[in-house]
Amino acid sequence: MTLAEVAILVGGELNGPAELEISEPVSPEVKELGGIAFAESESYLEIAEQGGAVALLLPRSLRGKKPFIHVDNPRAAFFALLQRAEQPLSLNPGVHATAIVDPTATVDPSAQVGPYAVIERGARIGAGCRVYPFAYIGENCDLGAGCAIFPHAVLYTRVRLGERVIVHAGAVLGADGFGYVWDGSKRLKVPQVGAVVIESDCEIGALTAIDRATVGETRVGPGTKIDNLVQIAHNVEIGSHCAIASQVGIAGSTKVGDRVMAGGQSGSADHMVIGNDVVLTARAAVLQSIESPGEYMGFPARPSFEAKKVLLLTLKLPELFARLKKLEKRANDR
Amino acid sequence: MTLAEVAILVGGELNGPAELEISEPVSPEVKELGGIAFAESESYLEIAEQGGAVALLLPRSLRGKKPFIHVDNPRAAFFALLQRAEQPLSLNPGVHATAIVDPTATVDPSAQVGPYAVIERGARIGAGCRVYPFAYIGENCDLGAGCAIFPHAVLYTRVRLGERVIVHAGAVLGADGFGYVWDGSKRLKVPQVGAVVIESDCEIGALTAIDRATVGETRVGPGTKIDNLVQIAHNVEIGSHCAIASQVGIAGSTKVGDRVMAGGQSGSADHMVIGNDVVLTARAAVLQSIESPGEYMGFPARPSFEAKKVLLLTLKLPELFARLKKLEKRANDR
Amino acid sequence: MTLAEVAILVGGELNGPAELEISEPVSPEVKELGGIAFAESESYLEIAEQGGAVALLLPRSLRGKKPFIHVDNPRAAFFALLQRAEQPLSLNPGVHATAIVDPTATVDPSAQVGPYAVIERGARIGAGCRVYPFAYIGENCDLGAGCAIFPHAVLYTRVRLGERVIVHAGAVLGADGFGYVWDGSKRLKVPQVGAVVIESDCEIGALTAIDRATVGETRVGPGTKIDNLVQIAHNVEIGSHCAIASQVGIAGSTKVGDRVMAGGQSGSADHMVIGNDVVLTARAAVLQSIESPGEYMGFPARPSFEAKKVLLLTLKLPELFARLKKLEKRANDR
Repeated sequence: MTLAEVAILVGGELNGPAELEISEPVSPEVKELGGIAFAESESYLEIAEQGGAVALLLPRSLRGKKPFIHVDNPRAAFFALLQRAEQPLSLNPGVHATAIVDPTATVDPSAQVGPYAVIERGARIGAGCRVYPFAYIGENCDLGAGCAIFPHAVLYTRVRLGERVIVHAGAVLGADGFGYVWDGSKRLKVPQVGAVVIESDCEIGALTAIDRATVGETRVGPGTKIDNLVQIAHNVEIGSHCAIASQVGIAGSTKVGDRVMAGGQSGSADHMVIGNDVVLTARAAVLQSIESPGEYMGFPARPSFEAKKVLLLTLKLPELFARLKKLEKRANDR
Repeated sequence: MTLAEVAILVGGELNGPAELEISEPVSPEVKELGGIAFAESESYLEIAEQGGAVALLLPRSLRGKKPFIHVDNPRAAFFALLQRAEQPLSLNPGVHATAIVDPTATVDPSAQVGPYAVIERGARIGAGCRVYPFAYIGENCDLGAGCAIFPHAVLYTRVRLGERVIVHAGAVLGADGFGYVWDGSKRLKVPQVGAVVIESDCEIGALTAIDRATVGETRVGPGTKIDNLVQIAHNVEIGSHCAIASQVGIAGSTKVGDRVMAGGQSGSADHMVIGNDVVLTARAAVLQSIESPGEYMGFPARPSFEAKKVLLLTLKLPELFARLKKLEKRANDR
Repeated sequence: MTLAEVAILVGGELNGPAELEISEPVSPEVKELGGIAFAESESYLEIAEQGGAVALLLPRSLRGKKPFIHVDNPRAAFFALLQRAEQPLSLNPGVHATAIVDPTATVDPSAQVGPYAVIERGARIGAGCRVYPFAYIGENCDLGAGCAIFPHAVLYTRVRLGERVIVHAGAVLGADGFGYVWDGSKRLKVPQVGAVVIESDCEIGALTAIDRATVGETRVGPGTKIDNLVQIAHNVEIGSHCAIASQVGIAGSTKVGDRVMAGGQSGSADHMVIGNDVVLTARAAVLQSIESPGEYMGFPARPSFEAKKVLLLTLKLPELFARLKKLEKRANDR
């Protein structure tokens, strides 16, 4: 694109050569020449002036030495450029000759199915779905319109996806929940006959596991985003618009509310209830149910302001022991 | 099934319409109509009466308003229904035309091998094994009778499975252990030439990694169940009938006894010895060997009753500091 | 090999029957007969004498009862035997008939591509690369000479590998970073249009995820070794010759220096800077940037000697409370 074309795309005011070629959106720190960055403040502008970007997106309150475009909201303008630069993983139209689709499965004519995908009995692939190479779509799975199943993702039987669900490479939905009973000498497997339901507009990260329910459903609510390497155990229910960061583990039957944010490596014991708008900081461990919205941290997870206070005092333990010793000495000397 | 058929199956006494259609075993809380739930106590009976189940499995001491079946052990009866409802992932008999089986590999005629499975030189697939699509069975692997290898599971070379071992989707057995030596300027890879042995009746969760030994074997004892996203490092030995929950990490050469239970996200340092019947609570970290049976928690893992006491006192640190300050003031005022 | 052949290979002095058959390098504790072990001290020699090894590699200061070979450095000699015993996962020369290679992709004639591998548009596979079954090499990926991509590894678009990079089974490079903006009612996906760069001589463990950058690059420096089930988030930069153990998580945009070692299950918050030669012990959590080399532990990660002191004092909290109570009683009694 030329700088003039960018200005039109973002609805901004051009300050520089219209014909300047712009390669891609870049960060202000980048060294390679050719891209366009954004800056919202003087300090970021300084960084961007020294970086490799050949043009900048700026608020009307700033002016650059490099060519720039004045916009109302530089971040939103940059976001628009990112969306334009995004290219989905390549996939040809139609069903590839090497894909194995069971005759009883239904694939919408507008769906794309890549090489070596396997779609089992009774599965349904909705309009505009993209099923990438090596994806395994098990018996009676149901994919709503516009889903993307990346290479090597595995859906066991009866996994139901809403619309526009993204499942990244290597994710496994619907494996057996971890349930056994001890019979006195060994563990008997409790059959896991339930389903997995992922509602519309969810994104499931690479190598994340979401187990099927023992009976009933493991469920992830609409708009919830889950990062890589996350474990969602059997019969867990997660609300809408949550953000679950990488390596989080949620144990069996726990119920998570709406708009919950879980930091990296945090976790929850089984059968907990975590209310709406709870924020778990990284590594927090929910060992008792949490009702009230707010930020929680630590092991066990407690309100952050309390947890931080205790953490700080823990660091002062050497001082505490010294002060105690001194008091004891004074008492003994008396 | 009809309610009468269920009663015969579980060996119970029918109290309700024989012809009532039962869709599936369900939980007492379920809303959808049609299933059968179990209740062992008054309180669960109340929940089940309000749920969608159209019939109940009850002990002889309870009577429901809904149709019910009296049994000696409602939980065991429900378990029998679950086993009947269980359906293995679909797989046709024989070896699929697209599976690539090396001519030197041996596949029992009763084994099933799905589309796009790859079985390498010298591998042996025992009677009744189910090898699902995209499974990779490396050179000289050996699968005992009745194993199930789910889609995308990878067995590097010389992985030996006993009988009835289940390996879930995406699990990786036999990748190189993480071993290097620092030569003063870079890390030299220590070749990992050992094997992996998984004994009979083990279950390995989705996306779990069990590394091959440097020399010798990484070994998992009979009947041990391992959840998703677990890391078992090179030369680890795990005893029989253990239960290792999700996201646990066991570092190199650690020896785990029999019937050990490891809670979610717990872990062990390398070269530890963990005795029989040890229970690690969630997130526990074994930094010193543990001999005695019992429950351990925290970082480092200590007997739970001690760890809990310390944890509670940690929460009282603000009070402790206040009491100390008061004492100091009194001493100074004197 | 015969013992005489081993002696020549390791450049040692034979003390035993030249024709003795040696099966493989083994550990001193092994029970099976036939292998060769090494011992560097009297105590290891004792263990090895009682194990199944039929011959030993010993320093010139020790003599065994079993046949042995005197060498300058038993560990290095054993290492040489390991290297000789190592066998790469089997793979035939050339491109397998079932591999799907886009016509615009370039595969060096010396590269090996296994069954059911998929290589997309514009990808380049360098000399001597081994691409195993079910590997997915996305559009415009670039693999330097001598790389090994194990079964089921997934490279999304624009992943660039240096030379001799090893990517283990199930690893996912280039999935979308976890980036969203909250628009008041839902999370909008921030397009992830950057790349992943893995420099020469890196090893990436099984089931490890390295996300593409939002813009720019997620980068791993030369010689860095990463274990299984690790999460490297978008825009992270890791230096050279680091060792990152299993289940570590590094959040977005964090910069890690050279020769950093991260213990199992350790982690870092986003936008941190971790200096050269920092060592994080297992489970350490970097919540503030770390400049100075040295060992760090705990949550938050602090210099180990401080963290250990605090940890020990924490264990003495029951004693502390008791001492405080006693002092209070004395003060009140007065």
